[in-house]
Amino acid sequence: MIENIVVDGIINNALAEDLGWGDVTTDLTIPEATVMEGNFIAKEDGIICGIDICRRVFEIADKNIEFRAFMKDGQRVFKGNIIAAIRGNARSILKCERTALNFFQRMSGIATMTDKFVSLTSDLDVKVVDTRKTVPGLRVLDKYSVKVGGGFNHRFNLSDMILIKDNHIKAAGGINPAVAAARKNSSHALKIEVEVESIKELIEAIDAGADIVMLDNMTLNMMREAVSIAGGKVLLEASGNVSLEGERNIRDIAETGVNIISVGSLTNSSDSLDISLKFL
Amino acid sequence: MIENIVVDGIINNALAEDLGWGDVTTDLTIPEATVMEGNFIAKEDGIICGIDICRRVFEIADKNIEFRAFMKDGQRVFKGNIIAAIRGNARSILKCERTALNFFQRMSGIATMTDKFVSLTSDLDVKVVDTRKTVPGLRVLDKYSVKVGGGFNHRFNLSDMILIKDNHIKAAGGINPAVAAARKNSSHALKIEVEVESIKELIEAIDAGADIVMLDNMTLNMMREAVSIAGGKVLLEASGNVSLEGERNIRDIAETGVNIISVGSLTNSSDSLDISLKFL
Amino acid sequence: MIENIVVDGIINNALAEDLGWGDVTTDLTIPEATVMEGNFIAKEDGIICGIDICRRVFEIADKNIEFRAFMKDGQRVFKGNIIAAIRGNARSILKCERTALNFFQRMSGIATMTDKFVSLTSDLDVKVVDTRKTVPGLRVLDKYSVKVGGGFNHRFNLSDMILIKDNHIKAAGGINPAVAAARKNSSHALKIEVEVESIKELIEAIDAGADIVMLDNMTLNMMREAVSIAGGKVLLEASGNVSLEGERNIRDIAETGVNIISVGSLTNSSDSLDISLKFL
Amino acid sequence: MIENIVVDGIINNALAEDLGWGDVTTDLTIPEATVMEGNFIAKEDGIICGIDICRRVFEIADKNIEFRAFMKDGQRVFKGNIIAAIRGNARSILKCERTALNFFQRMSGIATMTDKFVSLTSDLDVKVVDTRKTVPGLRVLDKYSVKVGGGFNHRFNLSDMILIKDNHIKAAGGINPAVAAARKNSSHALKIEVEVESIKELIEAIDAGADIVMLDNMTLNMMREAVSIAGGKVLLEASGNVSLEGERNIRDIAETGVNIISVGSLTNSSDSLDISLKFL
Amino acid sequence: MIENIVVDGIINNALAEDLGWGDVTTDLTIPEATVMEGNFIAKEDGIICGIDICRRVFEIADKNIEFRAFMKDGQRVFKGNIIAAIRGNARSILKCERTALNFFQRMSGIATMTDKFVSLTSDLDVKVVDTRKTVPGLRVLDKYSVKVGGGFNHRFNLSDMILIKDNHIKAAGGINPAVAAARKNSSHALKIEVEVESIKELIEAIDAGADIVMLDNMTLNMMREAVSIAGGKVLLEASGNVSLEGERNIRDIAETGVNIISVGSLTNSSDSLDISLKFL
Amino acid sequence: MIENIVVDGIINNALAEDLGWGDVTTDLTIPEATVMEGNFIAKEDGIICGIDICRRVFEIADKNIEFRAFMKDGQRVFKGNIIAAIRGNARSILKCERTALNFFQRMSGIATMTDKFVSLTSDLDVKVVDTRKTVPGLRVLDKYSVKVGGGFNHRFNLSDMILIKDNHIKAAGGINPAVAAARKNSSHALKIEVEVESIKELIEAIDAGADIVMLDNMTLNMMREAVSIAGGKVLLEASGNVSLEGERNIRDIAETGVNIISVGSLTNSSDSLDISLKFL
Repeated sequence: MIENIVVDGIINNALAEDLGWGDVTTDLTIPEATVMEGNFIAKEDGIICGIDICRRVFEIADKNIEFRAFMKDGQRVFKGNIIAAIRGNARSILKCERTALNFFQRMSGIATMTDKFVSLTSDLDVKVVDTRKTVPGLRVLDKYSVKVGGGFNHRFNLSDMILIKDNHIKAAGGINPAVAAARKNSSHALKIEVEVESIKELIEAIDAGADIVMLDNMTLNMMREAVSIAGGKVLLEASGNVSLEGERNIRDIAETGVNIISVGSLTNSSDSLDISLKFL
Repeated sequence: MIENIVVDGIINNALAEDLGWGDVTTDLTIPEATVMEGNFIAKEDGIICGIDICRRVFEIADKNIEFRAFMKDGQRVFKGNIIAAIRGNARSILKCERTALNFFQRMSGIATMTDKFVSLTSDLDVKVVDTRKTVPGLRVLDKYSVKVGGGFNHRFNLSDMILIKDNHIKAAGGINPAVAAARKNSSHALKIEVEVESIKELIEAIDAGADIVMLDNMTLNMMREAVSIAGGKVLLEASGNVSLEGERNIRDIAETGVNIISVGSLTNSSDSLDISLKFL
Repeated sequence: MIENIVVDGIINNALAEDLGWGDVTTDLTIPEATVMEGNFIAKEDGIICGIDICRRVFEIADKNIEFRAFMKDGQRVFKGNIIAAIRGNARSILKCERTALNFFQRMSGIATMTDKFVSLTSDLDVKVVDTRKTVPGLRVLDKYSVKVGGGFNHRFNLSDMILIKDNHIKAAGGINPAVAAARKNSSHALKIEVEVESIKELIEAIDAGADIVMLDNMTLNMMREAVSIAGGKVLLEASGNVSLEGERNIRDIAETGVNIISVGSLTNSSDSLDISLKFL
Repeated sequence: MIENIVVDGIINNALAEDLGWGDVTTDLTIPEATVMEGNFIAKEDGIICGIDICRRVFEIADKNIEFRAFMKDGQRVFKGNIIAAIRGNARSILKCERTALNFFQRMSGIATMTDKFVSLTSDLDVKVVDTRKTVPGLRVLDKYSVKVGGGFNHRFNLSDMILIKDNHIKAAGGINPAVAAARKNSSHALKIEVEVESIKELIEAIDAGADIVMLDNMTLNMMREAVSIAGGKVLLEASGNVSLEGERNIRDIAETGVNIISVGSLTNSSDSLDISLKFL
Repeated sequence: MIENIVVDGIINNALAEDLGWGDVTTDLTIPEATVMEGNFIAKEDGIICGIDICRRVFEIADKNIEFRAFMKDGQRVFKGNIIAAIRGNARSILKCERTALNFFQRMSGIATMTDKFVSLTSDLDVKVVDTRKTVPGLRVLDKYSVKVGGGFNHRFNLSDMILIKDNHIKAAGGINPAVAAARKNSSHALKIEVEVESIKELIEAIDAGADIVMLDNMTLNMMREAVSIAGGKVLLEASGNVSLEGERNIRDIAETGVNIISVGSLTNSSDSLDISLKFL
Repeated sequence: MIENIVVDGIINNALAEDLGWGDVTTDLTIPEATVMEGNFIAKEDGIICGIDICRRVFEIADKNIEFRAFMKDGQRVFKGNIIAAIRGNARSILKCERTALNFFQRMSGIATMTDKFVSLTSDLDVKVVDTRKTVPGLRVLDKYSVKVGGGFNHRFNLSDMILIKDNHIKAAGGINPAVAAARKNSSHALKIEVEVESIKELIEAIDAGADIVMLDNMTLNMMREAVSIAGGKVLLEASGNVSLEGERNIRDIAETGVNIISVGSLTNSSDSLDISLKFL
């Protein structure tokens, strides 16, 4: 669930971006009182996401537009399914159409992509998570879409988790001093994760008291060894070029026993899902 | 070229989104005076785009960071190429890294995708153009990236061109009255484009005095006929599911002789280009 | 028609500017429950413009205020005519009164001024257009008012049309190279206009393929020659100190046969139309 | 003096309004490194106002532009005078030119208009003041321009002075109770002004303890009587359709002995002063 | 009374600050349709202030929440009193609870503190006023709360009154030239106050024509002398470390006969009043 | 450390709030070129906080002002200590003075108050933490000040930690189902805290797998029992009316062995620290 108070600014901005000074075509050709009806239809299979954002786009522009959703975010659709229906002033609807679809298609694309990764690992006890590789300005929508697709969220931003990477370790003089400094001076509300590149570093991170250890670009063999060493004392996150197929496919990685797998492409390389607004 | 005045708001917003209340990890582990150097390196082949946006991200956050670009937007890079170098306060650089890369990777991804379409048609007299299927809030960057990749821009928004689609035609009572109404009451500064689905409609549009006609999802044969009918009197734009390969591949479409081919996937389904910031 | 999404920011800003911390007088002297009725009355003859903006000012401040318009934008009013009636909470109405009138009077003033220019040329096939000499921040309202007064809009801003002026020509090395560069690298959606100061330049512009040529401060004789040379192949725009009377009066210019006449004073030197809110 | 912190938002907004997505003409025709010089020249006589705003427009867009002012706000210029010189990147200058001039011309227009009113009364002990009839969003600039032209400011908005008008009087049950309520419950920092339409009301207002009394649309005879009654105990403000010439000309009004004359047309009906930027 | 147009930005900002990306706890544990009822209860004695702000917080987040106030701003409450009741969607209410209380408690705290100062002087003809020592961004609420607590407002900001302090006097070359410059060049709408530190300066200020004189940190004896000298010709404001008890207690100061006493601690050192939202 | 990008908006807003349309007094009395020097001096003992915010206020208004800090945030000052020196344009300094001090005094007040709580428990292994009872709009500054005073931060907002309170427990059907739902569906990056009112609930929360348990308003005896039951398996947070002295004084609570003590009054009832800017 995304609050209006969180997304209305994004939607207003998007509508203004697309309207410019006004829709010259529609105002010149469509009588003011014209009413229009249409259906949002899936043009390909996938997971639907963003119905409330779509509804809100129209609501902000014209509170008299009726928007009825027949499906819920997270539901699987097939080509030809009717997702929602809309009815209202023709000018208003046409002025919002592109903006509403741009949100809806991107969000559904991310949910659909996430679902593909999650489906390959759903019988295993592992969480597929996103990264901060989101589109600037839309992180809240991108991350929501990952959840709708069955994934989980990694940290939202730099302030809500401690994630110690190689540069932090180098500057602090090692994993132990880095974790110690973070532990001592940070809020009790924050977890500490450490990024490691070797088994030796993993052991240091565990000894230092990390809550989570990120295994950066490790081979399957290294990951298996890491799982055995961790022994459930810390959560292990596999990271780096995880894909649906090929050498670093998510299934093989999941089978090593890691607890979390983070996938950047969920948000930075997903295709949009083809959804159209068909007028009756 | 994109003006600061146009994009600074977007960049500030993105930095704030990623910073949250501040970078807890960096502030706890990296001494305030630490200086850092690094290189932006291409991790795959493609067309670079967004160097100035990348530079501006760091500049906004810390005006003392030195950013030297070795390449220019539009240049082809190969895996391993150093694109730019950066030097400055370590805390500042780490706080901007993800935001800068999120812009840089998306923009370069769009430019690279555009270049693929353009390359297939570069020996023909045809313009590859974008659509309004851009990410909400980033249209100015998405459309700039298309230009950098060798493509051209279609209208930016609903106010800077008249584009008469099926709903407008229906409401106005036909192509002729729609174009007539638009012509009579619109600014002389605006061109008029009409979307048609048949040869019959094409003829009506030409007769009505359209400047450009969009051929919506026409077969190659229909497009060839359209080109012959238009005879250079109007510009013809091919539109609808244009792809790099397969049935509606851009090469075949271009060879029909149309003047413009619009491709939605340039901006709504491009992968990001893998660029990393490697510290020395 | 102007969308709320386009103007609400302007209206909110104006209300806040006039309210400051609140209306000290009204809150201290008028009981909270007082209801008030009043009429918007024309105090001089003119063309009404901005009724919906006026209504929106009150609506934003207090959604329970009733606003009934008896006239439409573009209608001619005479001194004493009642344009609209208002009824609602007295405090709310008094707090919006000045802001609503400031918009209403300025917009009606521009429409009235435009109507004077248009009336002098209405039997001729010529468009009276505005310029970018608008009040900073109110361009969308200024240009809307010109349309309501019977005029047409020139380009809205620097991005929605190519207008090549003397400095561009000088820097590009002549009219031909300037137009060629613009034509080759610009969007097909944009028209190209060239500003010229002599018949020689006009011929160059036509040869270079301009869509429109602006005749800058030409004499009537030069304009007549230009019309004859253009022969309908390009649109001709007359520009520079066009006035209602005197040496460069619009009637004489229109009779030369130019297609478009741009008038800066429509928006930068119009008087406001006197409209008052009379309480019952 | 107007602070950047007060006007930068207005200027940024104006630049963005005029730039749209960028200046397509300039970017396509003028090489990036081109340098340009020019002079701001008065095309008619008047009072200059807005030099610092003009300078700030360029400074915000490009901090490397050199702007040298040869004159100061409030100085009288004559047709042909060079007011300021500018030198810098040609693209930057051209992108700001229109916005800078729109501010400069409007502000100078207001100052010039104000000067005309002030000149007619400068030998008398009277203050010419503005009203709240300013352009929405630009009040701070409009009122500054009045001061530069030799006028004075009336209240800025509804919160910084108590001004009791007919509706307040009616609702409060008379002048005395209205003033009493205001005096008792308001800040000691605020002055109280009462608007009256008759000599009887004037006396009531004086008795009630008003600091200032506004004589609404009174005849010259009534004003003279008012001056004699007031006897210097309260300030008297003449208001209503004050003009340069004609029946309600400012000279006649000033000679009645009133202390303040408010003139709405200073800000809602002034012409812009013709200033141009001539390139060398 | 505070207008929505003045405070909605503040409330939206506060809600966004507290929501972050959304309320993870509530969305995970409370079913979407759950309805909740609760009462706002005073946990200690004091003066209530901010009921409408509290109501508006919920209204902005969810317009279907019912909020019934049983009391009015300015009313005295005792521990255990029910101030208002709320009913609506449980998720919505929980997401607004903290923000609503943060406003309500601070505002009531200021009103309660003000009431304590005012109560000590209510039999005397003196106004207790606030200062500009308010919390950045909340001045309008802080100053409103002072009024609700029975106090009065000093100037809101630097532009709505002339207050000449030691630095101004020094720079202008004395009290007389400072007041003269201010009087001559300022709006007739503004009062002039002068800050003095000695009886000698007081006399100078009166002679210079100040409307109000601020007695900065004067002893009781000096204040008494000042009152006698002023003789009602100017208002006298006592200022500097005024407290409820001790050496500079407000009662003693008020009894000197000064007209106004300004108290910085009303807004910069008040405790919040304990109010809780108890669910049924 | 607080980033400019995080606080510049807050500072700009505060400056604009205090400036209004400009500082009428200063502009009328102080010559433009006047230079001024001054020292920030502690008028009472305490912990300094907000030096960089103070510096930034002046920097934003006038980048030529020199600001030299002799102390650092967190340092203890005594009455009379010079904290920082300032030198620059007199008008600029006077226009920022109040805003800078408002930030500086509030932040130092919070740090000083926090220090008092921390000092009483500094020999024990316990963290004093803040709450969300911060001033709307200033949470980032309030929470920073707590850290500077030696305290720690609890969660910043509703999205960066799961904190299950009585209403969540009731709606979810008990502690166990509430924690289970949260654990199953939340990000691995978030900790889970449960608020309990009895020992029975504490045991349920531990069994359910909470990371932290908040002991709401428990007696000292209950807290001791809780510590013994928890046995280090979960962190225990004491909460509710914690004060410096009296029945619920922080020392007694800390000695029970709880790990964290949260204190609302750090941010909602701290006095500002008296700091003044003394001009030389």
